[in-house]
Amino acid sequence: MGIRVAVAGASGYAGGELLRLITGHPEFDLVAATAHSQAGSPVSAVHPQLTGLDLTLGSTDAATLSDADLVFLALPHGQSAALAAQLTPGTKVVDLGADFRLQSAEQWTRYYGGGHAGTWTYGLPELPGAREAIAASDRVANTGCYAATITLALAPLIAAGVADPQDVVVVASSGTSGAGRSAKVNLLASEIMGDLSPYKVGAHQHVAEIKQATGAASLSMTPILAPMPRGILATVTARRLNGGDPREALQAAYATDPFVHVLPEGSWPHTAATAGSNSCHLQATVDIDSGRIIVVSALDNLGKGAAGQAVQNANIMFGLPETTGLSVFGVAP
Amino acid sequence: MGIRVAVAGASGYAGGELLRLITGHPEFDLVAATAHSQAGSPVSAVHPQLTGLDLTLGSTDAATLSDADLVFLALPHGQSAALAAQLTPGTKVVDLGADFRLQSAEQWTRYYGGGHAGTWTYGLPELPGAREAIAASDRVANTGCYAATITLALAPLIAAGVADPQDVVVVASSGTSGAGRSAKVNLLASEIMGDLSPYKVGAHQHVAEIKQATGAASLSMTPILAPMPRGILATVTARRLNGGDPREALQAAYATDPFVHVLPEGSWPHTAATAGSNSCHLQATVDIDSGRIIVVSALDNLGKGAAGQAVQNANIMFGLPETTGLSVFGVAP
Amino acid sequence: MGIRVAVAGASGYAGGELLRLITGHPEFDLVAATAHSQAGSPVSAVHPQLTGLDLTLGSTDAATLSDADLVFLALPHGQSAALAAQLTPGTKVVDLGADFRLQSAEQWTRYYGGGHAGTWTYGLPELPGAREAIAASDRVANTGCYAATITLALAPLIAAGVADPQDVVVVASSGTSGAGRSAKVNLLASEIMGDLSPYKVGAHQHVAEIKQATGAASLSMTPILAPMPRGILATVTARRLNGGDPREALQAAYATDPFVHVLPEGSWPHTAATAGSNSCHLQATVDIDSGRIIVVSALDNLGKGAAGQAVQNANIMFGLPETTGLSVFGVAP
Amino acid sequence: MGIRVAVAGASGYAGGELLRLITGHPEFDLVAATAHSQAGSPVSAVHPQLTGLDLTLGSTDAATLSDADLVFLALPHGQSAALAAQLTPGTKVVDLGADFRLQSAEQWTRYYGGGHAGTWTYGLPELPGAREAIAASDRVANTGCYAATITLALAPLIAAGVADPQDVVVVASSGTSGAGRSAKVNLLASEIMGDLSPYKVGAHQHVAEIKQATGAASLSMTPILAPMPRGILATVTARRLNGGDPREALQAAYATDPFVHVLPEGSWPHTAATAGSNSCHLQATVDIDSGRIIVVSALDNLGKGAAGQAVQNANIMFGLPETTGLSVFGVAP
Repeated sequence: MGIRVAVAGASGYAGGELLRLITGHPEFDLVAATAHSQAGSPVSAVHPQLTGLDLTLGSTDAATLSDADLVFLALPHGQSAALAAQLTPGTKVVDLGADFRLQSAEQWTRYYGGGHAGTWTYGLPELPGAREAIAASDRVANTGCYAATITLALAPLIAAGVADPQDVVVVASSGTSGAGRSAKVNLLASEIMGDLSPYKVGAHQHVAEIKQATGAASLSMTPILAPMPRGILATVTARRLNGGDPREALQAAYATDPFVHVLPEGSWPHTAATAGSNSCHLQATVDIDSGRIIVVSALDNLGKGAAGQAVQNANIMFGLPETTGLSVFGVAP
Repeated sequence: MGIRVAVAGASGYAGGELLRLITGHPEFDLVAATAHSQAGSPVSAVHPQLTGLDLTLGSTDAATLSDADLVFLALPHGQSAALAAQLTPGTKVVDLGADFRLQSAEQWTRYYGGGHAGTWTYGLPELPGAREAIAASDRVANTGCYAATITLALAPLIAAGVADPQDVVVVASSGTSGAGRSAKVNLLASEIMGDLSPYKVGAHQHVAEIKQATGAASLSMTPILAPMPRGILATVTARRLNGGDPREALQAAYATDPFVHVLPEGSWPHTAATAGSNSCHLQATVDIDSGRIIVVSALDNLGKGAAGQAVQNANIMFGLPETTGLSVFGVAP
Repeated sequence: MGIRVAVAGASGYAGGELLRLITGHPEFDLVAATAHSQAGSPVSAVHPQLTGLDLTLGSTDAATLSDADLVFLALPHGQSAALAAQLTPGTKVVDLGADFRLQSAEQWTRYYGGGHAGTWTYGLPELPGAREAIAASDRVANTGCYAATITLALAPLIAAGVADPQDVVVVASSGTSGAGRSAKVNLLASEIMGDLSPYKVGAHQHVAEIKQATGAASLSMTPILAPMPRGILATVTARRLNGGDPREALQAAYATDPFVHVLPEGSWPHTAATAGSNSCHLQATVDIDSGRIIVVSALDNLGKGAAGQAVQNANIMFGLPETTGLSVFGVAP
Repeated sequence: MGIRVAVAGASGYAGGELLRLITGHPEFDLVAATAHSQAGSPVSAVHPQLTGLDLTLGSTDAATLSDADLVFLALPHGQSAALAAQLTPGTKVVDLGADFRLQSAEQWTRYYGGGHAGTWTYGLPELPGAREAIAASDRVANTGCYAATITLALAPLIAAGVADPQDVVVVASSGTSGAGRSAKVNLLASEIMGDLSPYKVGAHQHVAEIKQATGAASLSMTPILAPMPRGILATVTARRLNGGDPREALQAAYATDPFVHVLPEGSWPHTAATAGSNSCHLQATVDIDSGRIIVVSALDNLGKGAAGQAVQNANIMFGLPETTGLSVFGVAP
């Protein structure tokens, strides 16, 4: 008998990817999946890619989740706290929402508004000391998709004194699944195909999380919606300090990490190579004109940016090998 | 120690998907992968989605493949016979090319030209009697991607006397990976995005294979290139015989097959739901105006249409459970 | 002073294309554009591609349209009749909806339900006798986008006795703008990109219109949604009669038409070549296996399939050269 | 009798767009179009969107172009100088290549290698004094597509003392037509769809041109290939000086320009809104965290970034209204 797993908020894109990963995980038994308006529907009606999975969506409440050893919360931001409080004591929880990521209540209020629910262990295993903290936790706040992409590129450079934390400029483009599964005109295929569109320019709520996770003191981030279903590509530039080598700093940081790959010199990350995987691809150089450091980071926003990361965290929480049920390799083309 | 597996012709799209499936297969050990012009390159330089796989492409010759118990041939059409003849006796071989699919030398010459190499066991396990034949074979000719999509939709209807084999009309659209990885102007992204384009209209070489596999006596097939990387959607229409129910005939044919799913009434197959999987989704109805049978069939041309099918055949050849190392579920969105 | 033109229902995709064509038309002066929920918004807020057009959307009522010599109705099906009845007598009207296309009230009720509003002159100028009828009309019912694509391919073949009207099979794929601009989950970019999905299989409401316009007696039509913003590609197959040459029949029918092009032998239509234009591209052959006629037809569903066609009809109604303000050439890539 | 116009290098994407614009231009008569390997082909065989244009591609030499009053050169970089030297004296020439854009021979050699051909009038009409210089010239060097996008966003801010020329960071994504029409594996649709990929990171050859045109002293630019056929979206960030308002500086600079639009506050440019047009859309803000200026600029790389810009320059050279034959409005969706 494996670990009993439930997913709350299974009708969205991250929820669907969680179900795919859980059903392929050798130690996890999927015991429940819940949704709000689509409770009562077969999973395969909501996620046709899961045709063959014989499971009906339950309603999102503590009773439906009570039988699980492990609960993934993939709820709209702001809804995790109330549900988490009602779960059976001892249930391990990974929250894919933003509610418990920030340490600072003041930053929470500035970027999200409303009251701060609290702070859980931050779930990015590749950060120094993170695996130990995650392994010791029953509650883990999964990183956001932009934060994962950018933090993996930037945190080691600031830690190594190679990049100036006072001068970081990021432009990051995301596939549309990162914008969620709500019916909105601006997310229609007719509007998106052939289009690149920036949004929340100058004031994206993930800046607070990224600064907290990377140690950046000043961060300009411009997010862009790109015409592809999955993937984030982040271009992270920073003023270079001390003539340091950014690529060496990345290699040193991730030498033993199974999912973070510093590419061979001359190769640059692209999103399609990470689709369906839990990998992050990185490359770095120094601009010949400005002398700035440029790091490019790519991952699958539903993989290492959400569901894959969540499974990786859960593996660590249960003492399993970190790679269990996850793929290093992408599905391409 | 698992089954030693090699892939000849690993630099194309089907080859890349084979490598992904083999490296995730619990009983297979990848021992060699070969290519022509890219021999000597690391696999990850040719297939960046396989970053983390430490393997160099060898040259495509019998010596490189001599250590394998199982060889997948993913070569250009016409090149399989010479290489297969040189392999170590007893090596099991699955050919993804067309060379050994046809029984009729005359049909081969009509559609492909040149001499007919011979006929191997036809590798579509869901056909009646096919599993037994495959299990007893050392040499299996994998179905083509169009043939797999169309045969799964049509063969049971002809066998059951529901569809008229004299009157079959098919229109099938394929993602671009089905057109291969050669540098051609008409396959450039700039030409393909936003475009649907028919090709080989009225004379596609796969018609012979489809007629052989389905029992159709007359078949009009129009293939179309669609702006997506993977997937085939086939619309198969036929004159209805004896008032038969096409959906019931499909359900009866595939009641126990793990990878072929007749969808619930009202749901129609779409390609994205099968991406990355080895599944085929089917639905059927009777047109209210013409009274014709319409069956729609969707699968991943690199999955059930090529590499996944090949692994399924190999599993059967080695007596493994048919689903080993394959996913019923797709990667979506 | 030119012809005063108004667009009712200008917030959708066909409405936006109408505004683009009208503002570029040398004889048309755009005097009003109306919308329902977006009345009061600047046009450029609803259609950012029209940035620079200084016009505010009015509400959709007769008063707002009272100053126009020519009104284009681009309303949801079923809403044209009431508004048309209130327009100033003598106003010329082109309705892009389905309300007035069908001659048969019984067919209307079968496919659309509800009461039949009546029948206007059918606005496909390339049909025999159509230009004269359109020129003599104050009220014209624009063809539907599927109907235009399929009728241009099929009508001359039935008229010439080359194709059997009893045995026609059509599969037609449309870009997403054909599905409208309503916020629906199944039209989200995340669902559409990489996907082909059939819909209304076996019972599409446009079958009645196509049969009326082509003379087909039995028609099986399968519509498919394709991952591109614009374009329709229809594959029309029919039993061949009397050994006729379908390509010659098409050439004879369209020898003097400026917008319908029978391509050189060996070239097949593709949708991207017609994007942004009012052209339809055609090619025909006889299938070597089945002997059926195959015609492929491509056009821009918003151009010759909707707004361009409407402007062409209006040109004829006002005695202008048919090509005024329209482009034969597409925008590609 | 209009102005006799020829296009040298008409088989590529910019060449095709030039032909479309010229054939729709009321004062231009297309007299010749040339190509290298495709000389002798009908234009419509190379550009199917121009079906209906009765013209055969000539060979690219001075004799073929000798009858023209105006020649557009759309040749591979490095080939313009030799051909331009052979043209009939008095022929006006717009070069879409890079050969004559740079003033500095040293910068040419650094970024392009080889000898510097010389410097022509720089063809970006919206720069201060540019229209007068262009009107007085027989030879104009059209801006590059990235340079046009970025210069329109940045030059007024540096000129107004609002942006620090020492600290500019740009990330710009281009549609695939910007990469040309050569058959390359990395430009295949299968590789591009679903993918974002950076290239020439840290050392793009357009940096020299952009610095020259904008006055930037230090510029980090990361170009990214995006999965769409047309469009460039540039995110230009710079350190803010003197508390200046970047949006006001842009509005002041472009108050009377027909093709450059500073969007209403809250609206951000996106590429699809400019497709097929000669417009550039701009918006600016100040980042709440870093205090940096962020400007986003969008245009059609084949329009305002290449062929449209070239026609605009030619209009000015011939004393025509700048907007003749060009569209402010885009083709969307």
